[in-house]
Amino acid sequence: MNAEIITIGDELLLGQVIDTNAAWLGQELNKNGLRVHFKSTISDTHEAILKALYEAQQRSDVVVLTGGLGPTKDDVTKIALAQFFNTRLILNQKVLDWVTSIFSKRNLPMLESNQQQAMVPENCEVLWNKNGTAPGMWFFENDTAYISMPGVPFEMKSIFEEEAIPKLKSVFTFPEIIHRTLQTCSIGESYLADLISPVEENLPSYIKLAYLPDVGSVRLRFSAYGSRNHKPEAALNQIIKQVYELAGQYIFGEESDTLQKVVGKMLKEKNYTIATAESCTGGFVSHLLTSVAGSSVYFKGGIVAYANEIKINELYVDPKILESAGAVSEACVIAMAENLCKKMKTDYGIATSGIAGPDGGSIDKPVGTVWIALATPDKTITRKYNMGDNRERTIQRTALVALDMLRKNLSGLVQANTF
Amino acid sequence: MNAEIITIGDELLLGQVIDTNAAWLGQELNKNGLRVHFKSTISDTHEAILKALYEAQQRSDVVVLTGGLGPTKDDVTKIALAQFFNTRLILNQKVLDWVTSIFSKRNLPMLESNQQQAMVPENCEVLWNKNGTAPGMWFFENDTAYISMPGVPFEMKSIFEEEAIPKLKSVFTFPEIIHRTLQTCSIGESYLADLISPVEENLPSYIKLAYLPDVGSVRLRFSAYGSRNHKPEAALNQIIKQVYELAGQYIFGEESDTLQKVVGKMLKEKNYTIATAESCTGGFVSHLLTSVAGSSVYFKGGIVAYANEIKINELYVDPKILESAGAVSEACVIAMAENLCKKMKTDYGIATSGIAGPDGGSIDKPVGTVWIALATPDKTITRKYNMGDNRERTIQRTALVALDMLRKNLSGLVQANTF
Repeated sequence: MNAEIITIGDELLLGQVIDTNAAWLGQELNKNGLRVHFKSTISDTHEAILKALYEAQQRSDVVVLTGGLGPTKDDVTKIALAQFFNTRLILNQKVLDWVTSIFSKRNLPMLESNQQQAMVPENCEVLWNKNGTAPGMWFFENDTAYISMPGVPFEMKSIFEEEAIPKLKSVFTFPEIIHRTLQTCSIGESYLADLISPVEENLPSYIKLAYLPDVGSVRLRFSAYGSRNHKPEAALNQIIKQVYELAGQYIFGEESDTLQKVVGKMLKEKNYTIATAESCTGGFVSHLLTSVAGSSVYFKGGIVAYANEIKINELYVDPKILESAGAVSEACVIAMAENLCKKMKTDYGIATSGIAGPDGGSIDKPVGTVWIALATPDKTITRKYNMGDNRERTIQRTALVALDMLRKNLSGLVQANTF
Repeated sequence: MNAEIITIGDELLLGQVIDTNAAWLGQELNKNGLRVHFKSTISDTHEAILKALYEAQQRSDVVVLTGGLGPTKDDVTKIALAQFFNTRLILNQKVLDWVTSIFSKRNLPMLESNQQQAMVPENCEVLWNKNGTAPGMWFFENDTAYISMPGVPFEMKSIFEEEAIPKLKSVFTFPEIIHRTLQTCSIGESYLADLISPVEENLPSYIKLAYLPDVGSVRLRFSAYGSRNHKPEAALNQIIKQVYELAGQYIFGEESDTLQKVVGKMLKEKNYTIATAESCTGGFVSHLLTSVAGSSVYFKGGIVAYANEIKINELYVDPKILESAGAVSEACVIAMAENLCKKMKTDYGIATSGIAGPDGGSIDKPVGTVWIALATPDKTITRKYNMGDNRERTIQRTALVALDMLRKNLSGLVQANTF
C-alpha cells in the first residue's frame, strides 16, 4: 500500500509558506499503516496538476492532493481533476446550500465566486468541509483512491480525519499497526535516549521507536506492526511500562495530551484554582491555560507585569527588590507569585521574569536568563534557567517549564530548590 | 531557468520533521530569479535518489539536493551521485584534514565513518562546509548544475549562500524577478478579490498575483518577471499604488510585516503606551504584543480577567453591568478598557470579552460572540463580532481584529460605532 502526497501552490514552491500540511498528512497516513513513498510540490497550473496525476496513477494506491481550491484559486485542481477523469463539473446542491448558509449566518453577501465552490466533478463524492466553503473530493478509479482537499490547514485536517480516513478504511484493508505516544518535557532528546536505552536496545524487530522533538518537549512514538505470530498490543504495553519505570517523571501524558490540558484536568479534579503573573512570557502562560475548553473552572485570571511600575503597583513587589536584585531575580518572582495568590485568592500562582532578548542582557544575566516561581498552598518553588538567545523559543520554553513545575507539584513529585 | 529541489529522508516522508529546508531554498532561489517549478521528497535509498536524478536531468537547469549525507546516513546520496555520473569516489585530502582537525579540537576519537566523509565523487567540486563534517558538492554536466548538501539546516544554509550561489552566478545569467507582498486583515479572501478585481483583470501577462490566506489575514503577492521589453519594477509600483487606492484601509503592511510589529512601530513613533484587559482572549493579545522585540517601550502590562470577580476587583467593572448586560457586553468591555487605562496610566487600552466555546453559548449570545473595546486618548471604540464556533480561531481572530482596530485608530482611519 503506497501513498503519495501532492501539495499544490506557488507559495509553497516560493517558500513563502512552509509545507506543514505534507508533514501532518505524512504522520496521519503512517499512523494508519500507509507508507508515504513520495511527496511532491507543484505549481498551481492546469498542466502541472495533470502531469502529477498521470505520474501518481502509475505508482501509488492512495493519492492525496491539497491546495488549488477556493474562490481566488480559480479552483484549478477541480478543473484538472475533471479532465483527468474525463468528466465535467456539476452543481452539488448540498454544498451550495451549505455555502449559502455560511454567508447568511454571518450576514454577508454571497459572491459569484463563492457559488462556484459548489461545482464538483461528476464522478466525485464530496468530502464534507464543516470549516469552510471549498468541499473536499473523493475519487476511486482502477483501485486507486484520489483525495483532493483545500490547502487551509484546519479545513484540510478535519476533512482528512473525519471524512477521508473512514472512506479509505471502507475501501482498503489497512495493515495492522498500533501506535502509542508518550509525551515528555523538561528533558532533551539525547538525554531521554540515554535514559531509555535499555528499552530501545531490546525492542523486538516489529516495534519501532521514533523521537519527535519540539520546542521544550519530545514525543516518543512506538509503532507495532502486527502479524499472526505475535501479539503487538501486549508487547507494547510491556515496553510502555518499562519506559515509565525509567523516565516516568518526564512523561506528562500520552497520545495528543498537552501540558495545559493535563494540568487543567489535575486542577479541576483537586478543586484548585490558579492565576498567573507574567513578565517575560507576556501572557503566553495564561494563553496556554485558557486555550483549554472549560479552563474558567480553575483559571481566575492573570497580570502581565511587563513594566516595573506594574510589578510594584499591581503585584506589590517591593521597589527595593527591583533596585537591589533587579526584576529578573528570585526575590522578584517569589513576591510576584505570592502576592498574586493573595490578590486573586487562588491556590496556585505562576510567576515568570526573564530576559527574552535580543536586547537587555548583561554579563551577570545574559539574554535567556529566566526566573520562574510557583506558589503552592504550602510553599513557593523557584527555578532559574538559561533558555538561549531566541526570543520566541525562550517565551515558549519558559511557559512549558512553568506548567511542568505545576504538574510535578500536583503529582506529588519531589522537586529540588524548594522554599 | 528552471530549478528543482529534492529533499531526501524518511523522516520527511513520515512527517516527523517539517521540511523547512525546502521552503528556505525556494525563497533563496526565487530571490535570485530562479524559478522553482518542482519540489519532491524521497526516501533515503539508492534507487529513489537515482530515479529522482534521472527525472530532474530532463526538466531542470538547476537541481538542489539536501540530505542523505553523513556518518549515520551511510552517505547514500554521494554513492548515488557517483553512479549517476558514472564515476568513482576518491579521497579529498583537504576535507580529510578539515574533518580530522574538528575531531582533534574537540578531543574526540575519529571513527572510520567520519573518515568516509572525505570521499567524494571524482567529478565534483567540493562546496566548503565550515559548520560540519559532510562536504557540499557541485556538479555541472550537459548545461545542468547539481548541488548536493547535508540536511542539517544551518550547515546547508551557509554552504548554499556562501558557496553554491556564487558558483551558480558564475555559470548562469540570472533572469530578473521581483516580488512584492501586501499584508491585509479584517477582510475575507473573496471580498478582497472583489475589491481589487479592476487591478487583477488588467494585470499584464508578466505579472502574477497570488492570494495567501491565513486565520484572520490574507497576503497578496505580486510577482513580476522581467525582460528587455518592459520595466517590471515601474509596472509593479503602479499596480501596488492602485491596490492601495482600492483596498488601502485593509493593508496593514508589506513583505514580512506582522500586525503586532506594525502597531508596535506606530505606538513607538507616536510615543504612546498601551495595556490589555482580556477575558476571552486569555492573554493572547498581550502575547502577540510582547512577541515583538523592544515592545517594553510601549507595552506596560495587562490584566487577564477571566473570572467575573477579577473583572470587578481588578478592573472595577460595576457588578450591576455584569448582572444586567452580562460579561459579554458592550458596557462591560467599555468599563474594562477605560478603567484599565486609568489604572495602568496608558494612552491606549484593548479589552476583549466573548464566548470562545464550546460551552457557554445561548440564543442571544451564541458561541463566537465577542465584544472588543479600544480606549484611545479621546474616545472609546467598540465592536461586536461573531467569530464562529472554533475556540482556537475565535481567540486568534479576536486578537487580530483588536490589533487592527488599534492600527486603524493610529493611522487616523475612520471607524464606525464610535463613542
